[in-house]
Amino acid sequence: MNDSEQAEQIATVGEVGIVESQDFVSSKPFVFESGGTIPELTLRYETYGHLNTRKDNAVLICHALTGNHHAAGVYGMEERKQGWWNFMVGPGKPIDTSKYFVICSNVLGGCSGSTGPESINPITGKRYNLDFPKLTVGDMVEAQALLLDQMGIDRLHCVIGGSMGGMQTLQWAIAHPDRVGSYIALACCARHQAQTIAFNDTGRQAIISDPSWLQGHYPDGKQPAQGLSVARMMAHITYLSETGMEAKFGRKRRDTVAREPFENYDVEFEVESYLRHQGQAFVSRFDANTYLCLTKALDRFDLYGTLGTLDEALHHVNSPGLVVGFTSDWLYPPQGNRDIVEALLRLGKDASYVELEMDAGHDSFLLCSPRLEALIRSYLER
Amino acid sequence: MNDSEQAEQIATVGEVGIVESQDFVSSKPFVFESGGTIPELTLRYETYGHLNTRKDNAVLICHALTGNHHAAGVYGMEERKQGWWNFMVGPGKPIDTSKYFVICSNVLGGCSGSTGPESINPITGKRYNLDFPKLTVGDMVEAQALLLDQMGIDRLHCVIGGSMGGMQTLQWAIAHPDRVGSYIALACCARHQAQTIAFNDTGRQAIISDPSWLQGHYPDGKQPAQGLSVARMMAHITYLSETGMEAKFGRKRRDTVAREPFENYDVEFEVESYLRHQGQAFVSRFDANTYLCLTKALDRFDLYGTLGTLDEALHHVNSPGLVVGFTSDWLYPPQGNRDIVEALLRLGKDASYVELEMDAGHDSFLLCSPRLEALIRSYLER
Repeated sequence: MNDSEQAEQIATVGEVGIVESQDFVSSKPFVFESGGTIPELTLRYETYGHLNTRKDNAVLICHALTGNHHAAGVYGMEERKQGWWNFMVGPGKPIDTSKYFVICSNVLGGCSGSTGPESINPITGKRYNLDFPKLTVGDMVEAQALLLDQMGIDRLHCVIGGSMGGMQTLQWAIAHPDRVGSYIALACCARHQAQTIAFNDTGRQAIISDPSWLQGHYPDGKQPAQGLSVARMMAHITYLSETGMEAKFGRKRRDTVAREPFENYDVEFEVESYLRHQGQAFVSRFDANTYLCLTKALDRFDLYGTLGTLDEALHHVNSPGLVVGFTSDWLYPPQGNRDIVEALLRLGKDASYVELEMDAGHDSFLLCSPRLEALIRSYLER
Repeated sequence: MNDSEQAEQIATVGEVGIVESQDFVSSKPFVFESGGTIPELTLRYETYGHLNTRKDNAVLICHALTGNHHAAGVYGMEERKQGWWNFMVGPGKPIDTSKYFVICSNVLGGCSGSTGPESINPITGKRYNLDFPKLTVGDMVEAQALLLDQMGIDRLHCVIGGSMGGMQTLQWAIAHPDRVGSYIALACCARHQAQTIAFNDTGRQAIISDPSWLQGHYPDGKQPAQGLSVARMMAHITYLSETGMEAKFGRKRRDTVAREPFENYDVEFEVESYLRHQGQAFVSRFDANTYLCLTKALDRFDLYGTLGTLDEALHHVNSPGLVVGFTSDWLYPPQGNRDIVEALLRLGKDASYVELEMDAGHDSFLLCSPRLEALIRSYLER
């Protein structure tokens, strides 16, 4: 892109604006990797931009653990809250909706409209809860493939995602090599290490040991809020970095504390206030059984498999891929990202690795960064 | 020490054997830094070795957050569980009880026999619970000073401790420079950063949001076990290192899982089993209100003070000190330990820093290590 083209592009950067989510319903039984089945399946999704007549300009965005299908735009003129990757998706933006038809679906097993533990099992008329079949990242991808089938999209221009979205992205490249034009996996890993499983299980224990959990049978609107909130607080720490937290909060105390004596474990430090708010806000938008289900799917994801090497899984890949690690990410550290690309290169694949120095920890991929934006823009235009 | 001396020493290494804890009772009111008071104070403690006639061979060991006064020996011939620093303390061991009179007391605010939130307030006849005054590391040290007064010990040969014990050690050198011959602080810091406060507050929220907490008024034997267990699981992860956990557990699955299908969030991975056990075992030996109280004391500890520099606090120090950091400690990382020694040296103090490469994370100071043992032995003999 020359300077005048770039100038023109910047001039035309815009917003996707008001969007609506849609539901894809497959009325056939869906069979999970584990062998479990559900009689029908819904995926809630959004699209931005237009599918061209050759149907070869589709970009699939895969969301992270607690993300959803609302990647860009707003639901109404009055709404200020934009989709979670709004800075990345839109006309003239890195994932340019004037060129690409962008799709983002809430994953199978999610709780934002797609079929998951919170959904009603049409056979019993009750929520699936713990009867929802054991879920894998592979199942999430197969459900998305059904959505693409219905749209008549044989091959994606690109699949892209961070964190759990990065795992889905890798899974797409592995399971459907002929349907993937290229892929970009951000802040991901090929499998969880013991520490990550340990954090996830502690979060699950917080939920399960909340008396309101009731073995997963909590009534509507009465989920185990305390446990889910604690799980979120802890997980949220792992999404940030020590440096980032220190810069943002340090040991700053709440104003109220300066005025009145601290009592009975109320908020004293700013970081406590921030985290407690994150915990409480999460409860209002996420379902506890879904959190259990999805974190388990992540813990079980293992591209190393029984042979203990990435070669078996990655030898199926036949599209070019970009993996991006972030220096301050200690949940899915750079090394785990580098290892994937090293294995791809060893296998003779077209693969690249970039490591971005950002202080925002694992969540770096969710934050505006000219370097990340430029990378994604260029890789999509390859 | 020459070879024959070393050989002799090894030949005489022994155990402190059966020990008994004792109670020091001060019947005067104790005034906390915060201004709060308690009418009387008990410190439970143990001693190993013999106080010499000059009373100048005393070594004070300060324990960590969930440690106690039982640093060495056993309580009976049948007992297999030794004190938490048994490998370090005994005849011929690095803290050599044939030379030194070793003292370890459960901290003020603790729940192993010293006065703390779990103790009965003699004025009300009920447990202090949240009425226990706001505690600081300084208060812990002043209570220990009363114990030494009663023993007639004017000056310690050395103060030593790791983690919260390291903070007490620093506080001793600062608050009582004339009573400290030397000090050794392991895996410590001059103040918590935002991330550490965040982890602690998440643990506190796990306890506080447990319905059994009852605003701190839980009946005897009915403490908020689930919340305390989750708090411990999370904290325990921060005491280890990713490398250490990976080496020990990796993605090993429980044998039972290989035989029967995994169901309903039972233990699947070994690391889950280990952590859940740690959580449950903790509940049987520690009190939830005490955990709240002590973690708050740690979060408030701040040698940087209002000026934001260590100089004001450390300029009082006048004894030689050794600070030891551990490479894999991400709770109290090496940098925080180095910063203390840099400030001491800048102030012209006699101070040394050693960084030991160990994989056990923050808990490294609790593990046998010839290098650590040699360091402590030599520094005590200076």
